[in-house]
Amino acid sequence: MTFFGQYDEALSPPERHLVELAREFCEGGFSEAARRARVAGTPFPREWIAAWAAQGMLALQVLPEHGGHGASFTCKVRVAQEVARCSFAAAFCLNNLQGQATRISRAGTDAQRSRLLTGLIDGSILAAPSMSEPGGGSDLGAIATTATRIDGGWVVNGTKDWVTNGTIVDFLSMLVRADENVGLINLLVECGTGASLSREEIPLSGGVSFRLARMTFRDHFVPEWALLGATGNAVGASMAAVNAARVHVAAMAVASLHSALSETVQYCARRQSFGCALLSHQGLQWELAEVSTRLEAANALVFRAAQLVDRGEAAQTAAAQCKKFAVDTAIWGVDQCMRAMGAIGAHDEQGLALQLGEVRLAAYADGTNEMMLDRIGRGLARNYGAPAGVESELKGAEGKA
Amino acid sequence: MTFFGQYDEALSPPERHLVELAREFCEGGFSEAARRARVAGTPFPREWIAAWAAQGMLALQVLPEHGGHGASFTCKVRVAQEVARCSFAAAFCLNNLQGQATRISRAGTDAQRSRLLTGLIDGSILAAPSMSEPGGGSDLGAIATTATRIDGGWVVNGTKDWVTNGTIVDFLSMLVRADENVGLINLLVECGTGASLSREEIPLSGGVSFRLARMTFRDHFVPEWALLGATGNAVGASMAAVNAARVHVAAMAVASLHSALSETVQYCARRQSFGCALLSHQGLQWELAEVSTRLEAANALVFRAAQLVDRGEAAQTAAAQCKKFAVDTAIWGVDQCMRAMGAIGAHDEQGLALQLGEVRLAAYADGTNEMMLDRIGRGLARNYGAPAGVESELKGAEGKA
Amino acid sequence: MTFFGQYDEALSPPERHLVELAREFCEGGFSEAARRARVAGTPFPREWIAAWAAQGMLALQVLPEHGGHGASFTCKVRVAQEVARCSFAAAFCLNNLQGQATRISRAGTDAQRSRLLTGLIDGSILAAPSMSEPGGGSDLGAIATTATRIDGGWVVNGTKDWVTNGTIVDFLSMLVRADENVGLINLLVECGTGASLSREEIPLSGGVSFRLARMTFRDHFVPEWALLGATGNAVGASMAAVNAARVHVAAMAVASLHSALSETVQYCARRQSFGCALLSHQGLQWELAEVSTRLEAANALVFRAAQLVDRGEAAQTAAAQCKKFAVDTAIWGVDQCMRAMGAIGAHDEQGLALQLGEVRLAAYADGTNEMMLDRIGRGLARNYGAPAGVESELKGAEGKA
Amino acid sequence: MTFFGQYDEALSPPERHLVELAREFCEGGFSEAARRARVAGTPFPREWIAAWAAQGMLALQVLPEHGGHGASFTCKVRVAQEVARCSFAAAFCLNNLQGQATRISRAGTDAQRSRLLTGLIDGSILAAPSMSEPGGGSDLGAIATTATRIDGGWVVNGTKDWVTNGTIVDFLSMLVRADENVGLINLLVECGTGASLSREEIPLSGGVSFRLARMTFRDHFVPEWALLGATGNAVGASMAAVNAARVHVAAMAVASLHSALSETVQYCARRQSFGCALLSHQGLQWELAEVSTRLEAANALVFRAAQLVDRGEAAQTAAAQCKKFAVDTAIWGVDQCMRAMGAIGAHDEQGLALQLGEVRLAAYADGTNEMMLDRIGRGLARNYGAPAGVESELKGAEGKA
Repeated sequence: MTFFGQYDEALSPPERHLVELAREFCEGGFSEAARRARVAGTPFPREWIAAWAAQGMLALQVLPEHGGHGASFTCKVRVAQEVARCSFAAAFCLNNLQGQATRISRAGTDAQRSRLLTGLIDGSILAAPSMSEPGGGSDLGAIATTATRIDGGWVVNGTKDWVTNGTIVDFLSMLVRADENVGLINLLVECGTGASLSREEIPLSGGVSFRLARMTFRDHFVPEWALLGATGNAVGASMAAVNAARVHVAAMAVASLHSALSETVQYCARRQSFGCALLSHQGLQWELAEVSTRLEAANALVFRAAQLVDRGEAAQTAAAQCKKFAVDTAIWGVDQCMRAMGAIGAHDEQGLALQLGEVRLAAYADGTNEMMLDRIGRGLARNYGAPAGVESELKGAEGKA
Repeated sequence: MTFFGQYDEALSPPERHLVELAREFCEGGFSEAARRARVAGTPFPREWIAAWAAQGMLALQVLPEHGGHGASFTCKVRVAQEVARCSFAAAFCLNNLQGQATRISRAGTDAQRSRLLTGLIDGSILAAPSMSEPGGGSDLGAIATTATRIDGGWVVNGTKDWVTNGTIVDFLSMLVRADENVGLINLLVECGTGASLSREEIPLSGGVSFRLARMTFRDHFVPEWALLGATGNAVGASMAAVNAARVHVAAMAVASLHSALSETVQYCARRQSFGCALLSHQGLQWELAEVSTRLEAANALVFRAAQLVDRGEAAQTAAAQCKKFAVDTAIWGVDQCMRAMGAIGAHDEQGLALQLGEVRLAAYADGTNEMMLDRIGRGLARNYGAPAGVESELKGAEGKA
Repeated sequence: MTFFGQYDEALSPPERHLVELAREFCEGGFSEAARRARVAGTPFPREWIAAWAAQGMLALQVLPEHGGHGASFTCKVRVAQEVARCSFAAAFCLNNLQGQATRISRAGTDAQRSRLLTGLIDGSILAAPSMSEPGGGSDLGAIATTATRIDGGWVVNGTKDWVTNGTIVDFLSMLVRADENVGLINLLVECGTGASLSREEIPLSGGVSFRLARMTFRDHFVPEWALLGATGNAVGASMAAVNAARVHVAAMAVASLHSALSETVQYCARRQSFGCALLSHQGLQWELAEVSTRLEAANALVFRAAQLVDRGEAAQTAAAQCKKFAVDTAIWGVDQCMRAMGAIGAHDEQGLALQLGEVRLAAYADGTNEMMLDRIGRGLARNYGAPAGVESELKGAEGKA
Repeated sequence: MTFFGQYDEALSPPERHLVELAREFCEGGFSEAARRARVAGTPFPREWIAAWAAQGMLALQVLPEHGGHGASFTCKVRVAQEVARCSFAAAFCLNNLQGQATRISRAGTDAQRSRLLTGLIDGSILAAPSMSEPGGGSDLGAIATTATRIDGGWVVNGTKDWVTNGTIVDFLSMLVRADENVGLINLLVECGTGASLSREEIPLSGGVSFRLARMTFRDHFVPEWALLGATGNAVGASMAAVNAARVHVAAMAVASLHSALSETVQYCARRQSFGCALLSHQGLQWELAEVSTRLEAANALVFRAAQLVDRGEAAQTAAAQCKKFAVDTAIWGVDQCMRAMGAIGAHDEQGLALQLGEVRLAAYADGTNEMMLDRIGRGLARNYGAPAGVESELKGAEGKA
């Protein structure tokens, strides 16, 4: 059974077909385009977003009644892995777009769906979620961007940071601070071309394909229809989304390592050294065996968590565990692969170093290792049977993902 | 969902009942008896074998037509985990006995079944497998114990080492070297009380409950009916058994760590230090969060491999990966738990140090880490898509598990 | 240059002679006696304390004017390493005794020296330091044992825990809480044979040679002359001593691993497997190469810190770093050695498992890893050049070692 | 005592002055220039080579009688660390140039010195060593570049790979294969501008400052005077040089991590999160404490090995150990630092990710981890006291560094 195939049995036949479609898409030119862009130090070409949309992929989890595939989370994870084998950054960005289509389909109002959903599905409207701010990182309590109520909507002031696809998005679903007695709300903010928004690309030499931007709003108008989800529920909805996002990032990190290990094994089976194939040297073989072992463990954690998400069961701890373990494993593992190859492993044409540059950013997406450890730590007493009542005495857990 | 419960859904209702029975057995006195024996430095009392048999547990995987439960491998793994939470060594030994009943039920002849099966099930006959020898470790090619054909059977000469339950077993299923053109065969050797067999207990301070022995045979007679399995197939059968055994050891190591982590979390939630519960200190919380993450990863690998075994799919690599990872994780993890508790973690009454002494022996059972890495390493080219034909060129794989 | 010899050049010729003496002592019967005791599960025989004293070793750091060798701390470390190669526990205990002679010589009053020093040097009086208590671990602020002023001295009430050599000591230098406006003081408490003191041996199967005890005092009288050091200085003196003690424990852990690695390399050079020496297998060779690398790193940290102690420079961070790294390395490394040997590594006669059982206790002595990390962490801002004033704003450091 | 200062006491006052000069050089504009070049993805500007030479730094180890400083190896290491704190790649390249001046001074003929030494010192002649070839990596037995004897010299044919400063060097000291009965020799090959040499820059996105090139020679003439060192001694001389080079690379990797840790600690002391400085969070503090511990251990190994080199003692094992440990620690440690900062750690302006890109290449320079493990492994039997004669039986060691 193939590495990825072992978890595909959980998919329905149409879902398996979608995974197959994604694989073919990557083999059909995208993979090479992503590689060339990386070597050139440019983002992967934007037209591949349209090509991906043309395959129906941005509607992966959109509800069938809205014209989507209604695929399971596990299916989404597998599709993301196929793309991540070519490029972690591209997979991240394509799925980020898809996530916004899903969100409008499932949590949007009719008005929002009629205005945005077709565009989000066909790629003519690009959207991204946005929580982080310059001063606050992942501390939601520190969100300082404000939405002030005016006639017919809000005006938004403040700066959002680390926005994925930020240099090209048309809409943001932004977490902003409304009046004091309302708290945080989610607004679908059209970016437009006016002076009330300025974008600044974030320079990350290894990560240009994330198209990250810092976006500053000054008296930026947002109309009435843009409120996403019920008032009072914005933090909860963001937190729920973040669990799935963590599993998703973990899945892509695993896929990226799988791709690196495959290339490395194949290279080491061909390359001769001291009279035999590199892969025949026991020491090197053991190093790669260790990589494969942790890779399998990471993938097993990913699909365990994905299953919980699909069932609607509590996935906070499982999501944090798989993100922590998969990201650690991928960063360590791709490095091991590069080294096993010798200096050729660092060569741009070979690509592992560049792929590693992208995967490293997984460490920050949807919560750092430190946040994962906090999250897992807060569940220890409950998960390992401490006497009732102890957990609530433990130090602060409020407002953390 | 509880830690172990998450994989129980794969079991049938009768299988879940068996797991429940095992849990109750442990809580009903066995757990405390095992603990006391460990503190005293003696093997767990032998009468618990009879008590376990009286629950029908030695017939766990015996075929229904022979009076057994016919349980799946995944069920066996879960039962073993329940016992291993109390004592890794006891779980190992009880399951070792059970494995012989299963083997006779599934691979024995009618004659063998009629002579042995009832006794193996009710615990009045204790049996163990035996491969290792003093000079050879896990190198089957080096097996030097001979079975010389005589009228009515064989005479056996040689020494077997590291025999589990060796100080008390009545029968061994021994891998021995027959005439040159026959090679290795499996014989069911009755130990008896005569002078043709001497047993020497192997002194392992932390592992007396394994009751390991070195057993030396001198012109020891074995009758005709004792040949187990077809001639020519003995190595293959042993190798197949070893895959399952590795998953099994891994599962017990995981359970042992789960038990240690649970005790540690509970202790640290109670114990005050510098004004608050130990578990409230972020640094310590993160250390235990890391333990729980790897614990989950190890368990996920165990059940992935168990599923392959149950389906009859190729499990060599998966078994080696889960054994490697689970044993590393358990030894490291129990150590982390002990340290988190402070010096009390080393205290006999607390028991973690003694439990760790037993778990450490998992590193040797059914193949060391080094053998696992060789096993995984030999599959790299096939599993990660090297061009066809490469693997067979790689260095030596014959006769290794 | 030999492993240990590389740092001996820092010693004076008489100091080198002392190291040589210690080595000969170990080879001359002590090593075998310690091994046999470990296998038997008993403390090493008490008469070896007298033999060690007879060599003048308990006067190692006693001032020359008091009849001692006045050896440097680096010399003490090297002597301890020679003993720790045979037995970590015995080295720990012998040096603990020696430390009390040194303390009375250097910090005692004339009265204390005239009463105790000869006995502490010739081994007829055994003494130990004592800080920990059942409820408090290493939190000095939680010390609850009281010394109430009465005519002619104090009466002491309370329980001290984890006292090294506690089952045999004649005197304790105890940190106790005097009247409120006095705070903690150090008293030289004669244990005697009366009812005012009860001792309870702490059961640690692997660590009986530490002779650890919990000691409970009820209205135990201590005379006037027993006050050690100036009032108000007791915590400071204890903290200063603890830095040296950490380096010392680290040094012994390193030596214990050196001994394990040496045995393992020699075994693996002899033992044949699959047609050649175990040590010829590249994978195993690399595993042991990694052990040797970290072993050298740990030893280099030890002697860097020892040099700071000898020069009287600030050694808090260096001591914590070498303890953290050496203990982690030793526990991991001895485990690696055991595994490399195969199951024989767990055998009592071979001794590595038993040695590991002792070394594990290094994790608790003079501060756990967690305390080391706190200690190092508190120095980060100062050691890595944060702007002045930042450190003092950082969270609580008072009363911690 | 400062981190680096702790080993400066081993230097003479003039040597300390050289270290000080290097520090001032870096602070005086070079540091900022190197940073800007990294962000721009270009090599650091070539004029800094001349500036460095103008400080006399390329004569660091040139013999005093040839106009150099005659500095010790330990001094060279400290100077390299000062530069590596700004840029690992620049430090590597400047010291590579310096090494050629040293070599000609110490091992060259009068003719070679009179032709080259002034230029090598003032930076008007740039030279590099060259061993690796496309097919062979570090396997000297596989060197295929030939030097065929003709009247007045040799003609050289073949390709050298991974040449440091390869895009700009004027001379190579090349290891080439002469006639069969001569074997490998070292030639000082002038590169010139003719058609007999073509250079191809090696694309390494993160490592352009190494200016690596593949250089192909076709019937390239080399005159008589260019033979460096005695015939028959070329491999030996290359191997001796490689030990020092490994220590040197290790030292620079350590310095690079020191720089990263300093920046991180300072950032985390300033940055607020959840109401206090990041550095006040115990978990993060412990992570950085662990980094600092391993950093100190790596540095201690570096200076232990440097001392052996300076004394002319056997340094093969010590050099391999410090390279292995320092490179592992630096790659892991800079990654930890980047993560501790949160996403800002990946930002180009911050620079850690770009610095890590350079440090990663330390893994390949002067021998990979795998070669280090082989080297250390081959010394195990000798260093840990196996019975005499065992080592020579162990598997192949010839022709390996």
